[in-house]
Amino acid sequence: MPTIAVDAAGGDHAPEAVVRGVAQASLETGIQCLLVGEEDRIQAILDRATYNPELISIVHTREKIGMDEDPRLAFRAKRDPSILVAAQLVADGKADALVSAGNTGACVLACARTFHVIPGIRRTALASVYPRQVRHPGQDPLAIVLDVGATIRCEPIELVQFALMGSAYARRISKIAAPRVGLLNMGREETKGGEVLVEAHRRLRSIEGLNFVGNIEGNDLATGEADVIVCEGLVGNAILKMVEGLADVFRNVTEAGARGSLRWRLGLALLGAPLRRLRQLTDYTRYGGAPILGFDRVFIKCHGRSGESAIRNAVKVAAKAVRDEVPREIAQAVAEMA
Amino acid sequence: MPTIAVDAAGGDHAPEAVVRGVAQASLETGIQCLLVGEEDRIQAILDRATYNPELISIVHTREKIGMDEDPRLAFRAKRDPSILVAAQLVADGKADALVSAGNTGACVLACARTFHVIPGIRRTALASVYPRQVRHPGQDPLAIVLDVGATIRCEPIELVQFALMGSAYARRISKIAAPRVGLLNMGREETKGGEVLVEAHRRLRSIEGLNFVGNIEGNDLATGEADVIVCEGLVGNAILKMVEGLADVFRNVTEAGARGSLRWRLGLALLGAPLRRLRQLTDYTRYGGAPILGFDRVFIKCHGRSGESAIRNAVKVAAKAVRDEVPREIAQAVAEMA
Repeated sequence: MPTIAVDAAGGDHAPEAVVRGVAQASLETGIQCLLVGEEDRIQAILDRATYNPELISIVHTREKIGMDEDPRLAFRAKRDPSILVAAQLVADGKADALVSAGNTGACVLACARTFHVIPGIRRTALASVYPRQVRHPGQDPLAIVLDVGATIRCEPIELVQFALMGSAYARRISKIAAPRVGLLNMGREETKGGEVLVEAHRRLRSIEGLNFVGNIEGNDLATGEADVIVCEGLVGNAILKMVEGLADVFRNVTEAGARGSLRWRLGLALLGAPLRRLRQLTDYTRYGGAPILGFDRVFIKCHGRSGESAIRNAVKVAAKAVRDEVPREIAQAVAEMA
Repeated sequence: MPTIAVDAAGGDHAPEAVVRGVAQASLETGIQCLLVGEEDRIQAILDRATYNPELISIVHTREKIGMDEDPRLAFRAKRDPSILVAAQLVADGKADALVSAGNTGACVLACARTFHVIPGIRRTALASVYPRQVRHPGQDPLAIVLDVGATIRCEPIELVQFALMGSAYARRISKIAAPRVGLLNMGREETKGGEVLVEAHRRLRSIEGLNFVGNIEGNDLATGEADVIVCEGLVGNAILKMVEGLADVFRNVTEAGARGSLRWRLGLALLGAPLRRLRQLTDYTRYGGAPILGFDRVFIKCHGRSGESAIRNAVKVAAKAVRDEVPREIAQAVAEMA
C-alpha cells in the first residue's frame, strides 16, 4: 500500500477538513498517510475523530503558506512551510505521493523544487476534472482538462505533451482503454485557431496510439465529446472557473428555493433524487482533486474549498495513481513520441 | 426611424424565421426593413404572415453563403451573396444597419469589405451577450463579452480598445451610466496572466472615464461582477460556447424530465414560473444578437440558431444602436484616449 504525504495546513478549511478526510480514509482503505502540519492541532482534531492510528502519522511543522500569499515571496520568507515539507517527504522516498488543497502556486513551486520533471517534458500541467453529460452506463461522469493554470500560452509541442499526459492519466485512473482527446479551439476545422493550434492539431493527428478526436469547441465540453481536453492555461483556467461559478449560482438558486414558498419547496422535494445528483455532480468541493502532470512523482491538487470527503477521495486517487504508475506511463508515452 | 438591412438567407432557420421575425417587428415598431434574399421565397413567407407592408421591402438576390461554407472560398466563388448585398446597402447609405444570423466568418468579411474601420481602431471585435445573476432590480440580466471570435490573440492596445468599445455599447444600449469593465484573467492580482494581460491591465487602469474594475476570473462571469468582459477571441469563444453547451444540457435534462415520471412532471410543474424564466434566460436562440464593434456602421449578429423572436429583437437592437449613434460614441472614446 502506498504512503501519501498530506499537506494538513493547505486549504480554506484546513486543518480540520484535511485531518478529518484523512481519518475517514484510514477507516476505508489500507493507505498510509503522513499528515504534515502543526502536531498539536492535528492531534486534537484526530482525538475528536474516529480513525485507524496504524495508518496515520504526523510530521510536524509550524509554518504554512496562506491561500492568498504570493508563493515566491512566501518561499523566500519561510523555511519549512507544510507544502514544502510534504513534497520533500515524497522526493526523499518517505512517501509515494503528495496531496494538498493549499495555494496552487505554492504547490506548483514546491513540486518544481523537490521533484524532477520527466525527461523530455517541456512543461508540467495542472489538470482539473469537470462534470459532463454521461452517454452510456459506466462512463466516468468526470472528464479532465489541462492545462488550467500552470501555463499561460503554449507552444504546439507543449500542447501535444499535455495530450499525451492527460491520455495516460485517464487510461490509468478512469480505466478508459483509449481516452478521446480533444483540442479546445474556436472551430472544428483544422485551419482554426491560429498558428499554434493549427500546428498542434497537425502533430496530434499524426501520433499513433493517441485517440485524437480533433478540435472541439466550448459547447462540446458539457456534452462529453472528449475524455481529455487540451488547452493553454489561460483558456483552461477561464472555463474551469466559469463552471465553478455557474455551479455556485445553481446552488444558491436551489438553496434559496428550498427556503422559499411552499410550492417551490414541494417542487424541489419532488425533484429530490435527480436534483441532489446534479448538485453533487456540480459540487467541486467534493471532487477528489486533479493531478499536476509531468513530474516524476504523483501530486493530487484538491480545490481550495475542499471538504473532508474531497480530501478522502484525493488520498484514494493519489494511491491509485501510485499503484498504476502514472508517471512511468507518461514517461513512456513521451519517449515513444520522441 | 432607421432602416435595417436584414440578411434573409443567413441562419439555420432562414429564410422562414428571419422573414417572420421581420414581419413581427413591422407590427410592433416603425422600423423599416430591407429583406435581402430570394424574392419569391421571401414573399411566399410574408404572404402567410401578418405584417405591415409599408415597413418591409425585398431586395432580391439568389446567392447565399451556407453556415458551413469557408467564407473566403465562398466570397471568391459568389458574386452577390445575400450578406454582401445587405452590407453594401448599408455602406451605400440605403440602410442604416445590418442584421444577420448567418455564417459568422462571412459576416465579418462582408463588413470588412464594405464598411470602414473607425479611425484609430486596431481590430474590430465580435461581442456576445450572456446571462448572469441579477443583483438589483432593473439591472440588465445580460452582460457582454468581447472578443468572442474575430481575433485569436491580441496586443494590449487591442484589449484596451475592446474595453472602450464594449463600454460605449453598454452605455448606450443597456443604459448603464458607467459600465463596469473587467479584464478576464487567471487571477485577480495585477501581476497575473503574462505580459499582454499585465500591460493591458496597467493601461486600462489609467484611462479616465472608464469604470475598470480590474481582473476578473471565470467564476465572476455568472455572478455578474462586470457589465463588459474583455478577453482575447480564443478565450471568449471557449467560454461563450461553453455557456451555450451547458444551456443545451440544462434544456435537455428538463425536457426529458417533463416527459418522465409523474413525480418528475409534478415537480417541474410546481417549479413552473422560475424554471421557465431560467430556461428563457439560458435560451440564446431568443437573444437579439450582439454587435461587431469597431466599424463605422452598426452590425448586429444573431446566433445561427435564432428563431423569429431573436430576429425581431435584433432588428430593435440595431435600430437602437443607430439612433443612439454607437459608432460615433466609440470613435469619440478612442479619439479621447489617443
